[in-house]
Amino acid sequence: MQHAKPLPALLAQRYHGWKATTHAENAAWYRRLATEGQRPKAMVISCCDSRVHVTSIFGADTGEFFIHRNIANLVPPYEPDGAQHGTSAAVEFAVTALKVAHLIIVGHSRCGGVQGCLDMCAGRAPELEEKTSFVGRWMDLLRPGYERMVARDLPAADQPRALEQEAVLVSLENLMTFPFVRSAVEARTLSLHGLWTEIGEGGLEYYDAEENRFLPV
Amino acid sequence: MQHAKPLPALLAQRYHGWKATTHAENAAWYRRLATEGQRPKAMVISCCDSRVHVTSIFGADTGEFFIHRNIANLVPPYEPDGAQHGTSAAVEFAVTALKVAHLIIVGHSRCGGVQGCLDMCAGRAPELEEKTSFVGRWMDLLRPGYERMVARDLPAADQPRALEQEAVLVSLENLMTFPFVRSAVEARTLSLHGLWTEIGEGGLEYYDAEENRFLPV
Amino acid sequence: MQHAKPLPALLAQRYHGWKATTHAENAAWYRRLATEGQRPKAMVISCCDSRVHVTSIFGADTGEFFIHRNIANLVPPYEPDGAQHGTSAAVEFAVTALKVAHLIIVGHSRCGGVQGCLDMCAGRAPELEEKTSFVGRWMDLLRPGYERMVARDLPAADQPRALEQEAVLVSLENLMTFPFVRSAVEARTLSLHGLWTEIGEGGLEYYDAEENRFLPV
Amino acid sequence: MQHAKPLPALLAQRYHGWKATTHAENAAWYRRLATEGQRPKAMVISCCDSRVHVTSIFGADTGEFFIHRNIANLVPPYEPDGAQHGTSAAVEFAVTALKVAHLIIVGHSRCGGVQGCLDMCAGRAPELEEKTSFVGRWMDLLRPGYERMVARDLPAADQPRALEQEAVLVSLENLMTFPFVRSAVEARTLSLHGLWTEIGEGGLEYYDAEENRFLPV
Repeated sequence: MQHAKPLPALLAQRYHGWKATTHAENAAWYRRLATEGQRPKAMVISCCDSRVHVTSIFGADTGEFFIHRNIANLVPPYEPDGAQHGTSAAVEFAVTALKVAHLIIVGHSRCGGVQGCLDMCAGRAPELEEKTSFVGRWMDLLRPGYERMVARDLPAADQPRALEQEAVLVSLENLMTFPFVRSAVEARTLSLHGLWTEIGEGGLEYYDAEENRFLPV
Repeated sequence: MQHAKPLPALLAQRYHGWKATTHAENAAWYRRLATEGQRPKAMVISCCDSRVHVTSIFGADTGEFFIHRNIANLVPPYEPDGAQHGTSAAVEFAVTALKVAHLIIVGHSRCGGVQGCLDMCAGRAPELEEKTSFVGRWMDLLRPGYERMVARDLPAADQPRALEQEAVLVSLENLMTFPFVRSAVEARTLSLHGLWTEIGEGGLEYYDAEENRFLPV
Repeated sequence: MQHAKPLPALLAQRYHGWKATTHAENAAWYRRLATEGQRPKAMVISCCDSRVHVTSIFGADTGEFFIHRNIANLVPPYEPDGAQHGTSAAVEFAVTALKVAHLIIVGHSRCGGVQGCLDMCAGRAPELEEKTSFVGRWMDLLRPGYERMVARDLPAADQPRALEQEAVLVSLENLMTFPFVRSAVEARTLSLHGLWTEIGEGGLEYYDAEENRFLPV
Repeated sequence: MQHAKPLPALLAQRYHGWKATTHAENAAWYRRLATEGQRPKAMVISCCDSRVHVTSIFGADTGEFFIHRNIANLVPPYEPDGAQHGTSAAVEFAVTALKVAHLIIVGHSRCGGVQGCLDMCAGRAPELEEKTSFVGRWMDLLRPGYERMVARDLPAADQPRALEQEAVLVSLENLMTFPFVRSAVEARTLSLHGLWTEIGEGGLEYYDAEENRFLPV
């Protein structure tokens, strides 16, 4: 791999600072996590967006959350066709091997992927409709959520948030199509949770199944 | 989604603590990130493993890294077939829309996915060879790295680490099959980096292209 | 004390979150508790085990329970020999100075201390029989309970739970050897209670003196 | 044990509420903790005082802290004489069996035990000097701290706090007399920490070894 470069000096410098402080303070714990293996309590699926840090929001310790991050925190439906499904692999590993107790989907405001989906479905982003657009094809997963949102006939200003929250619900629904998720949920060894965070004001809402809407935590 | 549960109270409590402190202290910055959009300097691809926190290791601020996490930090080759490719979508978004300056692959020690690949390729994990195994099919991406590792004829004890580092190299190689990555690298608007971290002792190595091996940062 | 280290950063961060929320919301009450002194209704003696949180189980407010926690929730017999007796000191303080109305012993399932006692008494843990084993000598307190349990001729699978419940009874009996406990009980200013909790299913049983066995709460 | 009473109805009621909510929300995690055993990151030694709740202050999850609580958070010196030493047993179990990474002593303001020691050493509490006083004999452990405090010639108003902080230091010193603590500290598999909390205002200070005094967290 002739194209790889060394780590930028600033990051190397910060790393050495971390090793001399945070790692040094917790070295015994890190060693135990290394030798005894991880035992995370929860899997979190959140967006790649640089403004969403679930370990910070929840004060999570090293070893506490198994985290998958992809564009728009989407989970595809169960499709065991022998092709590569990175998200499904992560869910399978968390639920069947690590046996996490909670699986939490975290959506967020100002999501670029969701905005792309909105534009694409409204016919405003033809480049995303092309077969070669990875983002476009990935956001196809959210089309059922878009249909539901359209049916609510919302003002344009409310649509991004509504679709961001639909992304959480589509993922929760798709999760239930995985046999090992469904059986764990039914056996009460796994619980599913849907969250949506507003990144500017630091708001946090959860999906309330009884009221069928998102409410502040 | 009738199966979704509210957020566990402990996490809700910690969230409120975060909002009253970390968020309150940085509210102006978070608001700017919300209204002006993210502008991350780098994309990081690391593992879902709960023991790997790149924002902690690199002291990264909110808004600094666009992070994709999947099992064993793998990037598949370029395959614009119209199917869903979550990792490729994240790379496409980071490189073409966000125009990140760095793309960093972070492998790590004690990787459960890599160990699974090792077992599968050595014939010790038939369940991973089944078509329905999402983890198995995902780890197929690492088979070229396994072949190279086998050719080095290493003692068994050295194989996990060697394969973990091959996972970084396979990803770097596959990245270069994406036309938009290759052209950005060649135009020097993007640089690629390969890292491997030892989670117990907090060690960090980078792939040195000249020496063709990993060296301590 | 040159060996002491600062508080790990994660705990410091969570503390600041607590202070800005839980403490801020209850500051008036905390200030009264500070200036007027504590006035707990009950003393609870439970195990050090990280899975047993009586304040959580009983929704106890700050100031409500005076809590002593030791290995296997044991109370030694009255022995005013001038040596250090930490448990006896805690009981003395609670009953004579704080005049608590209830004294509750809380045993629990999967108790490592009780299992050690079982192994030791059955001759399977010679290291615990050594004079220098603090855990072994502490668990000697439970030997009378072990003798009673053996007399019941239980299958091996039922023995841990039986001995965990004997630990509660031994403690209740020993409590009555303290003159100030006995006189408070006889004056009906203090009542004693024995509980046992099953940590997996969250079960709770209490010792019923009439039936001379543990029954679900 | 004819003297034991059933659980007061209010506590039974609260327990049922906890089981239907907190336990139900976390049942899968509690079951795993039950079957796989605890793996606490830290041992905390704090006072029995009803106003000190370290799990609340640190947002600690079930399974995170192994907690010993006694009067004035004292650790006696290493004394393997075959007698019962509850605190030493708890420390031994945490360090040698559970292999905790951190051992944290938490002192606090308005400590009744420390006040008793102050009164006793100043000749104002003859009843605590009696051989039969468990509290008095327990607080003898703090006499070395009292001597150091007296040498500082502080105004009376500052003495309780100074002696409360000495209680933390005496415990840290005594911990180092335990061979298994010392060797773990020297091997860097265990780190010791001293804290003092002000219960009215929710303040928290840590012992800074370099400055040899307590500083705000």
